[in-house]
Amino acid sequence: MTAHRSAARKTGKLSLAFRPLPVPQVDVRGFWGDRVDAVASRTADILYERCVEARMLEQIDPDRPSPGLVIPFHSPSPDEAATPGFTGSTVTTQMFWDSDWGKTIETAAYSLYRRRNDRLEKNIDAVIDMYEKLQQPDGYLSSWYQRIQPGLRWTNLRDCHELYCAGHLIEGAVAYFQATGKRKLLDILCRYADHIADTFGPEPGKQKGYCGHEEIELALVKLARATGQRKYMELAKYFIDQRGVEPHYFDEEARARGADPKAYHFKTYEYNQSHRPVREQDKVVGHAVRAMYLYSGMADIATEYGDDTLRAALDRLWDDLTTKSLYVTGGIGPSAHNEGFTSDYDLPNETAYAETCASVGLVFWASRMLGMGPDARYADMMERALYNGSISGLSLDGSLFFYENPLESRGKHNRWKWHRCPCCPPNIGRMVASIGSYFYSLADDALAVHLYGDSTARFDIAGTPVSVVQTSNYPWDGAVSIRVEPDAPVEFTLHLRVPSWCRKATLKVNGASVDLDAASNDGYAAMRREWQKGDRVEFDLDMSISRLFANPQVRQDIGRVALARGPLIYCVEETDNAGQLHRISLPRTAEIEAHPEPNLLGGVVTLSATGSRETAENWDDGLYRTEAPAVEQAKLKAVPYYAWDNRDPGEMVVWLRDG
Amino acid sequence: MTAHRSAARKTGKLSLAFRPLPVPQVDVRGFWGDRVDAVASRTADILYERCVEARMLEQIDPDRPSPGLVIPFHSPSPDEAATPGFTGSTVTTQMFWDSDWGKTIETAAYSLYRRRNDRLEKNIDAVIDMYEKLQQPDGYLSSWYQRIQPGLRWTNLRDCHELYCAGHLIEGAVAYFQATGKRKLLDILCRYADHIADTFGPEPGKQKGYCGHEEIELALVKLARATGQRKYMELAKYFIDQRGVEPHYFDEEARARGADPKAYHFKTYEYNQSHRPVREQDKVVGHAVRAMYLYSGMADIATEYGDDTLRAALDRLWDDLTTKSLYVTGGIGPSAHNEGFTSDYDLPNETAYAETCASVGLVFWASRMLGMGPDARYADMMERALYNGSISGLSLDGSLFFYENPLESRGKHNRWKWHRCPCCPPNIGRMVASIGSYFYSLADDALAVHLYGDSTARFDIAGTPVSVVQTSNYPWDGAVSIRVEPDAPVEFTLHLRVPSWCRKATLKVNGASVDLDAASNDGYAAMRREWQKGDRVEFDLDMSISRLFANPQVRQDIGRVALARGPLIYCVEETDNAGQLHRISLPRTAEIEAHPEPNLLGGVVTLSATGSRETAENWDDGLYRTEAPAVEQAKLKAVPYYAWDNRDPGEMVVWLRDG
Repeated sequence: MTAHRSAARKTGKLSLAFRPLPVPQVDVRGFWGDRVDAVASRTADILYERCVEARMLEQIDPDRPSPGLVIPFHSPSPDEAATPGFTGSTVTTQMFWDSDWGKTIETAAYSLYRRRNDRLEKNIDAVIDMYEKLQQPDGYLSSWYQRIQPGLRWTNLRDCHELYCAGHLIEGAVAYFQATGKRKLLDILCRYADHIADTFGPEPGKQKGYCGHEEIELALVKLARATGQRKYMELAKYFIDQRGVEPHYFDEEARARGADPKAYHFKTYEYNQSHRPVREQDKVVGHAVRAMYLYSGMADIATEYGDDTLRAALDRLWDDLTTKSLYVTGGIGPSAHNEGFTSDYDLPNETAYAETCASVGLVFWASRMLGMGPDARYADMMERALYNGSISGLSLDGSLFFYENPLESRGKHNRWKWHRCPCCPPNIGRMVASIGSYFYSLADDALAVHLYGDSTARFDIAGTPVSVVQTSNYPWDGAVSIRVEPDAPVEFTLHLRVPSWCRKATLKVNGASVDLDAASNDGYAAMRREWQKGDRVEFDLDMSISRLFANPQVRQDIGRVALARGPLIYCVEETDNAGQLHRISLPRTAEIEAHPEPNLLGGVVTLSATGSRETAENWDDGLYRTEAPAVEQAKLKAVPYYAWDNRDPGEMVVWLRDG
Repeated sequence: MTAHRSAARKTGKLSLAFRPLPVPQVDVRGFWGDRVDAVASRTADILYERCVEARMLEQIDPDRPSPGLVIPFHSPSPDEAATPGFTGSTVTTQMFWDSDWGKTIETAAYSLYRRRNDRLEKNIDAVIDMYEKLQQPDGYLSSWYQRIQPGLRWTNLRDCHELYCAGHLIEGAVAYFQATGKRKLLDILCRYADHIADTFGPEPGKQKGYCGHEEIELALVKLARATGQRKYMELAKYFIDQRGVEPHYFDEEARARGADPKAYHFKTYEYNQSHRPVREQDKVVGHAVRAMYLYSGMADIATEYGDDTLRAALDRLWDDLTTKSLYVTGGIGPSAHNEGFTSDYDLPNETAYAETCASVGLVFWASRMLGMGPDARYADMMERALYNGSISGLSLDGSLFFYENPLESRGKHNRWKWHRCPCCPPNIGRMVASIGSYFYSLADDALAVHLYGDSTARFDIAGTPVSVVQTSNYPWDGAVSIRVEPDAPVEFTLHLRVPSWCRKATLKVNGASVDLDAASNDGYAAMRREWQKGDRVEFDLDMSISRLFANPQVRQDIGRVALARGPLIYCVEETDNAGQLHRISLPRTAEIEAHPEPNLLGGVVTLSATGSRETAENWDDGLYRTEAPAVEQAKLKAVPYYAWDNRDPGEMVVWLRDG
């Protein structure tokens, strides 16, 4: 632990916290620039259009009739769900539509900052006008409960995503305000947040509830930071502190609805991480996205309050996730059944659920763990999830999506235009469009560089405006040149992450070598000095290719090897290789070469090697025989995992046979 | 093709057909004797008792009120299914209860022959009395349609198993008659078969239907053979010829019920092999048990009618199954979804459905393919399914059952007392109890020996009574001594199967060596001579241990190896080995030793070897790393697959990692 972080823990002083730079303060180019441009030029419009096609506009527009029940999701029949007394023991995706709008607005906000788009801005403004009209005089705002289930507000927090929707609208409002300066939506959501604060809290007469799908917690933190209103932070903390406390709110709420608490569709409150108070939790359980959003909110509150008890729980949960339940791609949540976690070391490749939203959620959590100061265990994981299991969910051109992100496919797992549960498209959209905010975090007298890549950041430190310009072809090349440009000389510590995947790195400041071992702590090289205009940091990260092996307790990866280069995990696709990828092996002795291919998949570095392959020839006499199959040489070519299924549909595999 | 078989095909003469010896004519000892004793002393009683517990007695007893709907199976709610007009677009297991009785009676019949059991015989006689009372004046007999859905008989052959139930009752009746000499049930079922023959057939005014679950076909063949009534054979042939003919009966029948034919739960008529006429079929598709029962009936009819067009279809289907969709255990039907077949080379191990009934069905089919004469490709497969994927479904003591027979388990797949769909327990019970009938088949002047094992058979050939006494410790030892004991000298051909798994065999008759290569055809050594009392055949089959490799197109077995010795496939269980069996590899160079263990699992030969195993030690820093896991030596011990899960529950694997 750095002295910095220890001090923060002891004092609980907010001034020591590291906070991300807001999106408008970091301009990305290069690898992430291309991704952001795809979202700004394509995805942002597509999200809006798909929402309209799904009849989401009608739902929020008080001047038009409600669309009624449009897309039933799990168990209830349309008749059941349309019954006035229906209390939603199960859910329809329509209950989440406000969250889809929230994330769509958030994506649009960052995109509008990147690239002017008058039509989109007009459309979003019109959506905001509808929400303004829809909002009730007391501040309440939920298109589902106002238009489909009037009179039932706050009766089923467990299943119906009411506060979750509020959270996403808040995040959208904060982003739209930061990106466009327009505060109408922010004002609407402040009124709603005020109403929520009047409804829930520790004070007598207020409800003691919290949401069955976490999200409101981290959103209220954002709102507090954006508005300076401490009460939103307090409410976020309340929701976290209250979660899982006995008597259990969801039990009492069910009884109040006249329902049997035991008749819960998902059987256990582990599903929504309310099985026990959060400070007593030590295993990552249940629905993966819910878990990530909860831990994100917990990390924010731990930072804001210097709360070591939360931090201790978060460290236990982090260890549990990263040592027992994490795909090598940064994907999480192997099971479709609960969209979440199963048992330790259970990481099936072909049936991996690994929802795009869950990997995005891991990015959120990891980034917030950096609030207490730089620590590469979090930033390394953030980078892994960013470059692999999250952006695999978006096609290179920004138009098509994955919900599940398996690590192996027989060729039938392909990208879709939309999904009946459309949570992932706007989630990956907003994450990519806001990538700049994950590059750095800033404390009173320190700047931490978490991510590398061509970019320019602008911020004030100790009252002095500073630009930091990275010049690099990262992640294809490990050479990173950083110019530090303060308006006037200013002393602060520059923390540079030394990625754990990097086996050799060299660091120079203005041409003079820095001893990385001496300078490094928690995986970051720290350089404190008075920075001057023109100071130049040269950081060179070795990008040799790695073979990765999984802990032998992971049955699905035993005897297998994955390839990585820099932060990227690679996969083998049928289109570059002969079919039946399961027949390919990669001997330990095989040389693996890297090849820049600027015209492939938007420009990538591919890997190639000579492997081997069992031949199926001469198997005329049945399925089984005593003679082992003959083996022939096989050229193999691997591409970055994030870029798969952007060409002809076909098989794909991450974990090759080793040997 | 042997001259024998060619002649049979050309002439179509029934006299050339090979038929199995009835159960009472073969007395088994040794390996199969123990299995039969377990069924006779335990399983047969258990089957009856479980049927009673499931309220099946009440259903067939006209003197008691119907139990109503007892165990709903798939989709319909009890309310739906109890609705008088419910036409069963989906099914409940209760529709099959007559088949459960049929198979329970059949198991009891063979068991009573093996071992006197007055209480069981009295119980079965009482069941038969109930069926006698239940039978309608016109011969119709279905407890489901008479007691639960009166008035709807013959309205849904597609889904409701009406003729399937008839078939199993017929098989039970034939067996009970053969084993006990009592013909009451046989007479009841003849009356029912007469009614069916009056209802279905090519003649004008008769219905052109057939059953959605094949079974009646092979049952009618048995009935024809037992009674000498040709019309039952003709009806069996009609059901086979009519299957899949356009206009499609199931379409017309659905329309007649006022239902949409397209609203078929299983979507495609491939599910019940009525997607096209049987002679045009070339792929094994759909529900595995249905397929096996159909092909069994087709094989019987091909034999009885010398029908080459059926035989050609059967040969295509046989090739398809055995080269593309067969587990190494003789299990078939990988998918739980349709309880059947998926795509070529798709043979998942852990999720293998491989229903006990399906492997039993493969034994039925293979045995009937021997009707046209000895051919080891069928008998080898029959032996493989018998010794592995079928009897794995019954615990060694005869009291517990498997429905699914996976080839890999994490320890949670364990035997049960009963099943909500209890088709497998009486199916494996009747198969084991009738094992003697699979040992031999007899033609006018030939005896084929398909299976080896301590046993005595008695039969007449060319008017001369003959005993054949096998003395052997097979399958644990490959030495088989066969005494041929005719009452008087008699000329016939003795065909001895030379198993395909055997790499070296020696054969002597009365001490003189026989040149196996010269004597063999279609995998059988043929010896024609005048056999005398005291003639002695010594057959010695090498039982070295084999490593088996799967066709590389089977993705789930790539880089894996299975162990076999004689007809037995082996597996590795957690109880004999350290846990996490996925970490075990078996190098190609490892010596594998066989050890007789008379006190283990009822007496088995185990296999042992020194393999290797990745150690999970020193994985403190996360799930993935660049250093390959260390490998240590691991002793491994394998037991016959059929005997798994008879001790402590735990992991199991058939396909070990190779290398």
